[in-house]
Amino acid sequence: MKIGILGGGQLGRMLIQNALKYDDEFYTLDPAADAPCHNISHFTQGSFNDYETVLHFGKDKDVVTIEIEHVNADALAELETSGIKVVPNSKIVKVIQQKILQKEFYQKNDIPSPEFQAVWNNDEEITMPTPFVQKMNTGGYDGKGVQVIKTPEDLQNIWKEPSVIEKLVDIEKELSVIVARNENGETKTFPVTEMVADPKLNLLDFNICPVMITDDTQRQIDSITEKFLNAIHSPGLFAIELFLDTAGKIWVNETAPRLHNSGHQSQEGNSNSQFEQMYRVVKNLPLADTDPLTYSGMLNLVGADGYTGKVLYEGMEEVLKLPKTYVHLYGKTETKPGRKMGHINVLADSREELLEKLVKVKSMVSVKAYI
Amino acid sequence: MKIGILGGGQLGRMLIQNALKYDDEFYTLDPAADAPCHNISHFTQGSFNDYETVLHFGKDKDVVTIEIEHVNADALAELETSGIKVVPNSKIVKVIQQKILQKEFYQKNDIPSPEFQAVWNNDEEITMPTPFVQKMNTGGYDGKGVQVIKTPEDLQNIWKEPSVIEKLVDIEKELSVIVARNENGETKTFPVTEMVADPKLNLLDFNICPVMITDDTQRQIDSITEKFLNAIHSPGLFAIELFLDTAGKIWVNETAPRLHNSGHQSQEGNSNSQFEQMYRVVKNLPLADTDPLTYSGMLNLVGADGYTGKVLYEGMEEVLKLPKTYVHLYGKTETKPGRKMGHINVLADSREELLEKLVKVKSMVSVKAYI
Repeated sequence: MKIGILGGGQLGRMLIQNALKYDDEFYTLDPAADAPCHNISHFTQGSFNDYETVLHFGKDKDVVTIEIEHVNADALAELETSGIKVVPNSKIVKVIQQKILQKEFYQKNDIPSPEFQAVWNNDEEITMPTPFVQKMNTGGYDGKGVQVIKTPEDLQNIWKEPSVIEKLVDIEKELSVIVARNENGETKTFPVTEMVADPKLNLLDFNICPVMITDDTQRQIDSITEKFLNAIHSPGLFAIELFLDTAGKIWVNETAPRLHNSGHQSQEGNSNSQFEQMYRVVKNLPLADTDPLTYSGMLNLVGADGYTGKVLYEGMEEVLKLPKTYVHLYGKTETKPGRKMGHINVLADSREELLEKLVKVKSMVSVKAYI
Repeated sequence: MKIGILGGGQLGRMLIQNALKYDDEFYTLDPAADAPCHNISHFTQGSFNDYETVLHFGKDKDVVTIEIEHVNADALAELETSGIKVVPNSKIVKVIQQKILQKEFYQKNDIPSPEFQAVWNNDEEITMPTPFVQKMNTGGYDGKGVQVIKTPEDLQNIWKEPSVIEKLVDIEKELSVIVARNENGETKTFPVTEMVADPKLNLLDFNICPVMITDDTQRQIDSITEKFLNAIHSPGLFAIELFLDTAGKIWVNETAPRLHNSGHQSQEGNSNSQFEQMYRVVKNLPLADTDPLTYSGMLNLVGADGYTGKVLYEGMEEVLKLPKTYVHLYGKTETKPGRKMGHINVLADSREELLEKLVKVKSMVSVKAYI
């Protein structure tokens, strides 16, 4: 089968890597000539935001999917009209692309998400009291397009753009759950993962599974995933990012209609990974079992501050000596501060051992550049 | 790093698939235009048996390795002379390529292997009494180039070619052990796997791990792997095929200087797979831990008799519904009787459950062709 992917980054690369277990042909579209997928698929250099480019790219494929949500959804709709299968479909991509529509989707489907005000026009009065979060309606990504307005004085910094004004949640924990639905309507949910963030213990930016939550919390999440999967009317794999507040209530922060960083530990930690699941969704195959095999966690390898150029993974050889430690690089030759270059997954027999191993690995490796 | 592989079949494909976790560039050489590696590496169509072709292919690589042993070893030696790293080195490839030299290698290094007579010339008298096995000196592969001479009458069928005449072993079990050595001299051994063959129970052609062997048998195998790893004087990954005879003694049948079908269950069954280990050998990285995670087994997907053409995996969708069952196809579009098209790995909590699952999966799927 000819599978086209809009985007040629690391998510696409790991999807294709996993799918080399099967017999398909992959095609990718990305503006960067050296995108991580360029040398492992039929690669087209071009913009996935451009209507004509996407239409041209998709028209001879059996199915078109995405590994980034900022794509031209009108072109996806046109491809659907012409009979090409699009996963997830253009409607749900359009809803998720626009934060205001996304919030209205939660509201309509009785999915708990923080109270909000939709601001379409520059001159609209903001009625939400400070402190609050402002999220740009479109284009937000990896923390960009989001700001906190703390005090009435900060109101002068407000972006004069269509946006969501959202009540600040008193966050206890950040959780994530990856769900999948195929064309046949079969659904499957991955175990919840937790973003560990304890600056005092130097525990930061690790995503781990399984999580320590109460039965009540799990029930709230189950209710959310069920409502979500019933409401999307589309095949797809989705990452639902959640807040657990200090009062014990779960809120949906936002959803990505694609493979997600918070699911990377599934590569070695679960019976099957999010990449295997996404492949099965795209092909409308029976969904894979997602059981956790043991305690698993992930840390991102991010370009260190002050280093730009040909990447050098300092300390990596020592990391490779550690048992049940799995290095995943993204085929990016150039590093720059903050760039996601890879990740490391770790398995352990207990939560304590897992956190210890993650802290140790993090202290051993850094992403620098050759001088 | 530029890594060149002689051969572009499924072993190379799975090596590259695994190595997409890292940042190397792979180059493959194979006579078949549609070889499994053709669309996932820089591919050169050509003969790995041809001196000039191999020399030309290898001369601009950082390291050259093999995924089949029937390559031009003189060209590998020439590449070494010109400073290219070759893994495994040309010397050990030459020894293993020729069954007579391979048997002499075992003899010299006190590695138990069945009694034999080397026949270099057609007119040499065969002194071994029947029954015995005749193995062609070169070119044997996947059961080809091997015949059993049972009676004095069968002697008329003897191949008039350089060959090894080998005493028949009264086989209780066929075992295999995969060992690795990197350039630094570090060594690592995978747990022994067993080729299950019980026609009465319909248990056939499954490779499973761990095996049911006595401590004494394990000690015999440990002694063999130690002697082998000390004798090769080369980095590499090697599959040592073993016979356990009915008297409880272990004999080396033969060795492959490469990735091997008997190690495929390591993909999901062990902490790291033979493909990860081979990658680390090629790059002279610390070797990976090889612990078994649970009971694991593999069955080959082989083209059914009577079917030639565009492959159709009958029953595959049902197989994909089974938990802890992993399908690996080799990207081959055309099937023919006996062609290895893929394999399926299965995990289980006990040996009994494993064998049951393997028998079940085998009965569910067959490799046919579209009419």
